[in-house]
Amino acid sequence: MEINTTYNPEKKDWAKLSERPAINNATITSLVANILYNVKKNGDEAIKNYNFEFDKVVTNNLKVDAASIENAVNLIPKKLQNAIQAAADNIEKFHQLDQKAVTIETTPGVECTAKWLPIEKVGLYIPGGTAPLFSTVLMLGIPAKIAGNKSVSLCTPPDAAGNINPAILFAAQLAGIRNIYKVGGAQAIAAMAYGTDTIEKSDKIFGPGNQFVTRAKQLIAAEGIAIDMPAGPSEVLVVADASANPAFIAADLLSQAEHGPDSQVVLCTDSESLLKEVQSFLEEQIQELPRKEMAAKAISNSRFLVFKDIPTCMDFSNFYAPEHLIIQCQNLDNTADMVRHAGSVFLGPFTPESAGDYASGTNHTLPTNGFANAYSGVSTYSYMKRITFQTINKKGIALLGPTIEVMAEAEALMAHKNAVSIRLNYLKNA
Amino acid sequence: MEINTTYNPEKKDWAKLSERPAINNATITSLVANILYNVKKNGDEAIKNYNFEFDKVVTNNLKVDAASIENAVNLIPKKLQNAIQAAADNIEKFHQLDQKAVTIETTPGVECTAKWLPIEKVGLYIPGGTAPLFSTVLMLGIPAKIAGNKSVSLCTPPDAAGNINPAILFAAQLAGIRNIYKVGGAQAIAAMAYGTDTIEKSDKIFGPGNQFVTRAKQLIAAEGIAIDMPAGPSEVLVVADASANPAFIAADLLSQAEHGPDSQVVLCTDSESLLKEVQSFLEEQIQELPRKEMAAKAISNSRFLVFKDIPTCMDFSNFYAPEHLIIQCQNLDNTADMVRHAGSVFLGPFTPESAGDYASGTNHTLPTNGFANAYSGVSTYSYMKRITFQTINKKGIALLGPTIEVMAEAEALMAHKNAVSIRLNYLKNA
Repeated sequence: MEINTTYNPEKKDWAKLSERPAINNATITSLVANILYNVKKNGDEAIKNYNFEFDKVVTNNLKVDAASIENAVNLIPKKLQNAIQAAADNIEKFHQLDQKAVTIETTPGVECTAKWLPIEKVGLYIPGGTAPLFSTVLMLGIPAKIAGNKSVSLCTPPDAAGNINPAILFAAQLAGIRNIYKVGGAQAIAAMAYGTDTIEKSDKIFGPGNQFVTRAKQLIAAEGIAIDMPAGPSEVLVVADASANPAFIAADLLSQAEHGPDSQVVLCTDSESLLKEVQSFLEEQIQELPRKEMAAKAISNSRFLVFKDIPTCMDFSNFYAPEHLIIQCQNLDNTADMVRHAGSVFLGPFTPESAGDYASGTNHTLPTNGFANAYSGVSTYSYMKRITFQTINKKGIALLGPTIEVMAEAEALMAHKNAVSIRLNYLKNA
Repeated sequence: MEINTTYNPEKKDWAKLSERPAINNATITSLVANILYNVKKNGDEAIKNYNFEFDKVVTNNLKVDAASIENAVNLIPKKLQNAIQAAADNIEKFHQLDQKAVTIETTPGVECTAKWLPIEKVGLYIPGGTAPLFSTVLMLGIPAKIAGNKSVSLCTPPDAAGNINPAILFAAQLAGIRNIYKVGGAQAIAAMAYGTDTIEKSDKIFGPGNQFVTRAKQLIAAEGIAIDMPAGPSEVLVVADASANPAFIAADLLSQAEHGPDSQVVLCTDSESLLKEVQSFLEEQIQELPRKEMAAKAISNSRFLVFKDIPTCMDFSNFYAPEHLIIQCQNLDNTADMVRHAGSVFLGPFTPESAGDYASGTNHTLPTNGFANAYSGVSTYSYMKRITFQTINKKGIALLGPTIEVMAEAEALMAHKNAVSIRLNYLKNA
């Protein structure tokens, strides 16, 4: 396993050290554009053909029947049921809305309100793969349940026998989702974006996915359908000082590295001896992993950086804007206060990233690729819109009207002015 | 002036009745893509060339000097100064953050926090035109001031003499903006997206504009630079019953229509007599308008719809998802409760849309083109990100750890499990 260490990199090299693997490619774009076009035109038939072509499965019924969803609970071990339920409870607690509406009287008689209301129809995508990602079902489904979206669709690819894993169905049931469709990839995004006879059109589409899914989301976003956020491979940055436990850090870095060879793993420290210890625990722990080749590849693409002090480590972290940021420092509160750009932050020795991935209650759908500098992770607010309301009474328009008239006239919008003047004249003559 | 009235349209025709003017066109895309490329490559020099080519002005200094900003207050009438100040005060009151951080203990020893933090660098675009849009400077600049963005850039095209209108500079000064640049159009968006020697790169770009600006924002959004929202021509929908004042409604419709021939104006009512009265006031009031030809064109593109009752009017309004929604009904609170999709809502006879455009305190940068079904208007939160933090203590990981282990194993992510197991073992042996 190759490990790249850089000592005191100069600021001019930070951009280079923050580069993520490039993810754009023209072949994928034209392939995905074709899939979008075909699903838009041929609906369910196109979906079934893609299921056969890409997933080698015949799906006569795209929709999972209600009985399968209800029966799912009987097909998974009690221990896993309880774990999923415990995680769901924590996620539900943390995702409660901390504000629904606020009203402010800005001028006597001028009452302005901001109110969060649910988006009507949302679509959730859950990728397939070697294991069922039921945790992502909770992360996307529970905020939708709290937001109160009228229609929630969930698309996920079926297995070779045409079934959806019962852990996914059970998690969906906990989130109150009844419309589950057997379709994956760019074709699933297309189905939710445009609608088919079976699958309802969504106003906003959420969820992670491979390059095809990501590209499909980009393309439909350019058509005006909302998406949760732009995406890229997962990443973690650890800031640690000499007080940190190097074995814990090695375990955290590997938990990120096992996601895939393009995963990004960065360690920033002011302690060279910690760095050496972490590297030796990495060599040791990686031997035990079933995904050890993949993890070794990710580690060899990753960065181990030594800076002069922890504030400089945090400067670099803010520059990098990591999806996940783990801080293991003696002066924890002070260091946490230095966070300016990150998706989700894990503080202290007993807070592994896995906790947020599954069960602490925070959301694991987070901005990658430096997007944390301007985007938030998924929250219940992602499933809602903030609408403003204003009510002005006679006293209010009498007080505020002249201000509006002067401004409208200065912007040469005379009809805007008239809409006020006509009311002020009415009141004068009343 | 032609007025199109439709009586009791069937639901199957609602999509047709909700169509906005098409805004996409391949010529514009390739023109804008060229401008983006040129500014990315040639920076300030490209900007200066475009200023000369498009705006016929030589700009040696792209940046407005500090003295011009400070002196602006002396160049505008006291009455306008006071109006701008009064509007700024209301906007500032309404845009205060109603929440900054919330902490929830989801499991004993597992503390999760969501915290709003400012985006670092934002760019604001203010269109040019026949009159200075200082109101948009307030709407985009004041939330940035409250959010506390470290760098705020403002781009707006100079006039023929190479100057920026003092009302724009005064509004910018009230919002604490010091970096004002003389550049408009797609080239301004490019400058803020990529940065030049003079103009700082922004993480998120805000503001309205013509088709070139809109297309430039779409293209840079696809590259991962955040934008406030997708855009289209402005629009208003009025829901009114027989109790409404038809002269007020006519004035409100015209205030929207004067924005341009592609402005959308829709009246939904259950009262045919109100409709007739509104139409006759329209004919009368339009005569007085300096922009009467433009307004007449917008009115002739617009829709006057009679439905069987107000709830059906509101169903149509929610289907249409208007940028601005004016409600003038007897049963105001009940009707307001039916709002599901809209940008900003104006309730009652003395609440013209102009109030929200200028001075009630709500933001006038709102989703058009039906995007109100999934997007919010600009608020202070648009200038921030919501970052989550978690801190787990020994007790917390002992309680929650086994749940994470079971879930990680079921998702076949053994390194995720190990990151917890190594901590639980440590505590067992401690």
